[in-house]
Amino acid sequence: MEIANEYRHFDANELNDFVSRIFCEKGFGKSDALLCSQVLIAADLRGIDSHGVARLSGYCRLIDIGRINPKPNIKVLRNKGINCSIDADAAIGLVSAPFAMDIALDKLEIMGGGFTTICNSNHFGIAAYHAMKALSFDAIGFSMTNASPLVSPARGKERMLGTNPICLAVPANLQIPFVLDMATSTAANGKLEIASRKKQEIPLGWLMDQNGHASVNPNELKNKGNLLPLGSDKDGGVHKGYGLSAWVDIFSGVLSGANYGPWVPPFVSFLNPIANQPGKGLGHFVGAWAIDGFMEPKTFKARMDHWIKRFKESTPIDTHEPVIIPGELEHNQQINRLKNGIPLHTEVIADLKVLAKSLKTTFIHEK
Amino acid sequence: MEIANEYRHFDANELNDFVSRIFCEKGFGKSDALLCSQVLIAADLRGIDSHGVARLSGYCRLIDIGRINPKPNIKVLRNKGINCSIDADAAIGLVSAPFAMDIALDKLEIMGGGFTTICNSNHFGIAAYHAMKALSFDAIGFSMTNASPLVSPARGKERMLGTNPICLAVPANLQIPFVLDMATSTAANGKLEIASRKKQEIPLGWLMDQNGHASVNPNELKNKGNLLPLGSDKDGGVHKGYGLSAWVDIFSGVLSGANYGPWVPPFVSFLNPIANQPGKGLGHFVGAWAIDGFMEPKTFKARMDHWIKRFKESTPIDTHEPVIIPGELEHNQQINRLKNGIPLHTEVIADLKVLAKSLKTTFIHEK
Repeated sequence: MEIANEYRHFDANELNDFVSRIFCEKGFGKSDALLCSQVLIAADLRGIDSHGVARLSGYCRLIDIGRINPKPNIKVLRNKGINCSIDADAAIGLVSAPFAMDIALDKLEIMGGGFTTICNSNHFGIAAYHAMKALSFDAIGFSMTNASPLVSPARGKERMLGTNPICLAVPANLQIPFVLDMATSTAANGKLEIASRKKQEIPLGWLMDQNGHASVNPNELKNKGNLLPLGSDKDGGVHKGYGLSAWVDIFSGVLSGANYGPWVPPFVSFLNPIANQPGKGLGHFVGAWAIDGFMEPKTFKARMDHWIKRFKESTPIDTHEPVIIPGELEHNQQINRLKNGIPLHTEVIADLKVLAKSLKTTFIHEK
Repeated sequence: MEIANEYRHFDANELNDFVSRIFCEKGFGKSDALLCSQVLIAADLRGIDSHGVARLSGYCRLIDIGRINPKPNIKVLRNKGINCSIDADAAIGLVSAPFAMDIALDKLEIMGGGFTTICNSNHFGIAAYHAMKALSFDAIGFSMTNASPLVSPARGKERMLGTNPICLAVPANLQIPFVLDMATSTAANGKLEIASRKKQEIPLGWLMDQNGHASVNPNELKNKGNLLPLGSDKDGGVHKGYGLSAWVDIFSGVLSGANYGPWVPPFVSFLNPIANQPGKGLGHFVGAWAIDGFMEPKTFKARMDHWIKRFKESTPIDTHEPVIIPGELEHNQQINRLKNGIPLHTEVIADLKVLAKSLKTTFIHEK
């Protein structure tokens, strides 16, 4: 467990205000800056701390070296029926993915669905933010992104894939929405960083060393090791996790005109993209299906309520740990953090204070 | 390994002819009978023996007790934009899923995509057959189905989900297509049956007994045990496999008007569907995205060739086991079996001979 006194709590609205000021200072237009802060705060509220304001200083460094364009001129490359592709002009994904999702959502009423690929983009925050935009349209939202290569394919020991998340958001009526937002690797990078900081071993199945041997040492990732696809090994069905991750790479990278596989640019400013790139930046895929092409939305949402209720009531292994629904923990965390504030690690706070000082703005007070 | 002399080889065309005769004898129209045999032979050719002609006698028993309707009147329930839902009138999925996919494919040219839900259906064979129909349309095909409950959710020990497969088929140019066709459980039922027959232990992570304890005894499944979702346990990311399986159940069952979760009807004739069903039969979801709404198909397929080539050339752990692409083993098996025949287990042959005799037709000769 994290040690409580390493954390301070901050009000979500105040933090949102601070983060948007930083993006403004970095050259973003006011509405883009607000959008970026909103996506990051959404991650912190949902408890996905690795994708929240902890990322801000990293983004700033990418802006500083010109890899993220604060004033992008996003262009529609192709737009036929339900499908569309856009070139994000090196925008941050926090801006380009909502732009792309809006194009898709605009098509729901007439065509019943919309899907947009994005190339020439950067990190897009939590996948759930984008897919969940569909919920208020009585639609099922979908989002994926490729990411810096850290994961080996089944049978391989070369970094060929990112943690490549898939998100699906499905509305219900009285129940909370079903929101599956999962990396296609067994474990996300953030879990290894925490274990590394605490000098703890990690479970077998998360990581292999550079020679392709399973390892419990989280530091092997920094030593040219690889994260493993969901399934971890042959008996565990690693070819399935590899296949899912490949799907994300094909939709986000190959189909969009972005880079794919080992060419996906690194998220960190101190590593340069490798040469002979087959595309532009990294890529995403977002979209939605309107429910009313299949079924009356009211009927569907009542059926989802029934589905959710039945699963939550199914027999648990341990009565203290009931069966839950994808997105339930995150939903509860959001209620908690809206009330009690967002906990930030002292290292993240120090980072944000340095950023504030360098941009001649003030950091906020603890809640 | 299987023992070679337990198998006899049969010519794919002759087997196809025999199987279609059986369906005709069971009351199917000629074209539906041919379609059914084609889907089953496609499974055998691709090496998915569990979903090929080995299923024929089971289907016949479901026809005999009236659960599969040999002369269905399939109805379109709703058809708006790219989306459609059909009631299969208790058709076998081997018939209803191609019917639904044709509706989806017809929409590609005008709208760039098409998706159809199917309720009141039965087992649909291999998911890949349906998704792969999109390949010749320069489209990406997608198919999923829910299935008899055998799998527990994360944290649970109750059978709430089927092995619920997801299939994605993506065309390339010179390379073979990318065809991911995966059960969302760690292992499919067929693997347990083989281990059981051979009195072998299975790897930890495939199965839990009725008390929720991991088990290496394949017979625990018949003793009220559960298959495990991909990821197998908490450290392995079982919540992800559960989430994927739930996705399949929601698209195939909740969205279609079919049954879902524990109410999905069993595939076997000796078990009755449970009472108070929330829908009709079991359900599928099929569809496709046209590539040219995103990118020139020629460009995309060249990029897929490049993607596939790069992955196949990536560094393997063991040089004798190169990295492969989803669908590659099945593609190679098809070439082999078209040439050398389809191997059928002597038990399956005995089953088919009984069927032939009861329907007053003749079985075919070995190749």
